[in-house]
Amino acid sequence: MKAEIIAVGSEMLTPSRQDSNSLYLTERLNEIGVSVAFKTIVGDRLKDLVNVIRTALGRADIVALMGGLGPTEDDLTREAVAEALHIKLRRDAAQVANLHARAATWRMPMPENNLKQADVLDGATVLPNPNGSAPGQWLDTTHNGYRKLVFLVPGPPNECCSLFDNECLPRLREAVPPRHIAKRVLKAAMIGESAADKIAAPIYTTYKDVETTILAKTGDITLTLLCTKPSLEEAQQRVDDLAGRLEEALEEWIYSSKGEPLEQIVLDYLGFRNATLATAESCTGGMIAERITSVSGSSRSFLGGAVVYSNELKTKFADVAPELIERYGAVSAEVAKALAEGIRLRTGATIGLGITGIAGPTGGTDSKPVGLVYIAVSDAEKNEVTERNFRGARDRVREWSAQQALDLVRRRLM
Amino acid sequence: MKAEIIAVGSEMLTPSRQDSNSLYLTERLNEIGVSVAFKTIVGDRLKDLVNVIRTALGRADIVALMGGLGPTEDDLTREAVAEALHIKLRRDAAQVANLHARAATWRMPMPENNLKQADVLDGATVLPNPNGSAPGQWLDTTHNGYRKLVFLVPGPPNECCSLFDNECLPRLREAVPPRHIAKRVLKAAMIGESAADKIAAPIYTTYKDVETTILAKTGDITLTLLCTKPSLEEAQQRVDDLAGRLEEALEEWIYSSKGEPLEQIVLDYLGFRNATLATAESCTGGMIAERITSVSGSSRSFLGGAVVYSNELKTKFADVAPELIERYGAVSAEVAKALAEGIRLRTGATIGLGITGIAGPTGGTDSKPVGLVYIAVSDAEKNEVTERNFRGARDRVREWSAQQALDLVRRRLM
Repeated sequence: MKAEIIAVGSEMLTPSRQDSNSLYLTERLNEIGVSVAFKTIVGDRLKDLVNVIRTALGRADIVALMGGLGPTEDDLTREAVAEALHIKLRRDAAQVANLHARAATWRMPMPENNLKQADVLDGATVLPNPNGSAPGQWLDTTHNGYRKLVFLVPGPPNECCSLFDNECLPRLREAVPPRHIAKRVLKAAMIGESAADKIAAPIYTTYKDVETTILAKTGDITLTLLCTKPSLEEAQQRVDDLAGRLEEALEEWIYSSKGEPLEQIVLDYLGFRNATLATAESCTGGMIAERITSVSGSSRSFLGGAVVYSNELKTKFADVAPELIERYGAVSAEVAKALAEGIRLRTGATIGLGITGIAGPTGGTDSKPVGLVYIAVSDAEKNEVTERNFRGARDRVREWSAQQALDLVRRRLM
Repeated sequence: MKAEIIAVGSEMLTPSRQDSNSLYLTERLNEIGVSVAFKTIVGDRLKDLVNVIRTALGRADIVALMGGLGPTEDDLTREAVAEALHIKLRRDAAQVANLHARAATWRMPMPENNLKQADVLDGATVLPNPNGSAPGQWLDTTHNGYRKLVFLVPGPPNECCSLFDNECLPRLREAVPPRHIAKRVLKAAMIGESAADKIAAPIYTTYKDVETTILAKTGDITLTLLCTKPSLEEAQQRVDDLAGRLEEALEEWIYSSKGEPLEQIVLDYLGFRNATLATAESCTGGMIAERITSVSGSSRSFLGGAVVYSNELKTKFADVAPELIERYGAVSAEVAKALAEGIRLRTGATIGLGITGIAGPTGGTDSKPVGLVYIAVSDAEKNEVTERNFRGARDRVREWSAQQALDLVRRRLM
């Protein structure tokens, strides 16, 4: 079954606010085998709301409306659903009593407009909301001959999520055929999106019952495999089967078969090998250390590092000989190697990582353009340097560089 | 004129990914007087995409499509627009040449499927994308007798936003009736959202013609003031007037009156004072150095620093006496001060910043709970330490800590 989630509220059409409840609802819906096919955000205008609800009824089996249930003039979700479905609103006596009781416990007079919140769609079940004044509503109805499950929940996240869990989810579970979704997330580093797809597509397109998506971000590819079946075992077997074939085809580009980030994998490998890492970063300015230390427990394998932005610090913290910088330039294979080896020896780490480059937008020359980066990985046996030419703005060059550096450490540990 | 923004990509219908480009586009559209009436998120299914595009054409004047322009099988935005508008796709020879040239500079053979990206809607203008392989498209067309402006931009944020700014915005500006909007962005650090609003609201609510929004993010408050008037001068005067009063009321919490990030302001102050900075980070693991070096030209005032995750490195890189760590613990006011002073003396920087804390989720004790952070700022005159107890998950504690540290450096330089 397909769901559409509609977030109602003009504030979510401004540059500064975003619907986030839908992420929670999506997770819960997926768990019972319902996929979210559409999400729509609409403001507090009746005409627009009716349009959106009618559109949703035409393309989804389950329509989840969040927000617009409060007492103010621009809370219009109830009215819009009534208009879209050509049904009436009735003022519910029990709800009116509830609202009076609620106002009394707050020792406040109840404004007349509060009573709007007692308006219930004809045929709907009122869903109690212990965290707020606006109750939810549940409607199991027919539209153009098709069964539609429509529910209205309040917008504030704490009210929305708990009301959904307590009242909507049990009803949905009963209404939808029992289905199970299995999921696998594979991650690959430093392969282009189209190159990855060229390898992966001939395989995943033969698994029609598994939905495969590829997402690329600065040297990081995420392959998500989703399969829905009447039994979880069956679904799991299909995604595992496909995941296995993709892992084989994408070879050592794949760094994770369970969706962990690259920095986590590097730390896992370090732990497994009983090895430690230290970094000497110039152009990435601490980005690599920051990524590694974002993982809890990273202190077991990551000793630390130096952000050696000035030439002086390259010497002070990583023992790079000033003559080397003088002779080859701060951005050179030689200095990258010296950084890697220097930081390794200085800290006593098993592996030293050195990186130097020109992040831009200024500082480039004809022979050393913006985007030129040298990354060296040093251990007791060897000290290898990789030269790359990354493109794009400063932040992109830095992100690519950090990703490449972490991937080189992973490959050294493989 | 009304716009609908459509974000295309199945990953944005999962519990873990959210469209964020639309916030940027909304801001830019608002600035030229276009309001966003609908936002829709749809997956990579042709039928659903066509449905969504047809719906948008029926209710909006401007239809912005983001994503689904890549080379893979599930990139279907071009095909869907063609089907929704009953127009043809043609393979553009210039784009084919571009794609070949691009592959050549990367010294990679071009996969055949890449050529999809050269398919152009009949009548559309190709919008060059210097940051990626998929160009955008701009279509000024008619649908059921109404003029519709439809544009397709790539999904990756850096490609989406710059292509929109460079190619779509000038064309939209020509197409929509001129309006004059003046804008000011004020930024404040380390004051709570409600505390800031309590001070600001009595002022900004008296400026009914200026739309004021407050956005809070880990110790960073952004106040955006927008005013629309028949003349730009008039609009500018109103926002400048309000900005002046808010700056006065929010005193030294305000760090920027033009919207620059805190790291930029710190660098400006350092440059102005002819001073330099070096950092010794434990719990933030390089996050502060990373933020500072994200600013181009930061090398003029930022010497570098050390990520001193292990106790040994605290000694090796910032000369913290092992007895000090032994006596007070690595997370202590004393060690923070020693880090700040040690890194300053070692690097010869004007200001040394030392930070140590417990980012969590593990490592906390009764006397030193998760979230306890010490930040010291040392210069030739004094070495002051600030103790804070931040709440939340590991990434939040680290972000709060980095923000607090940068703000302390700013205040020292004020």
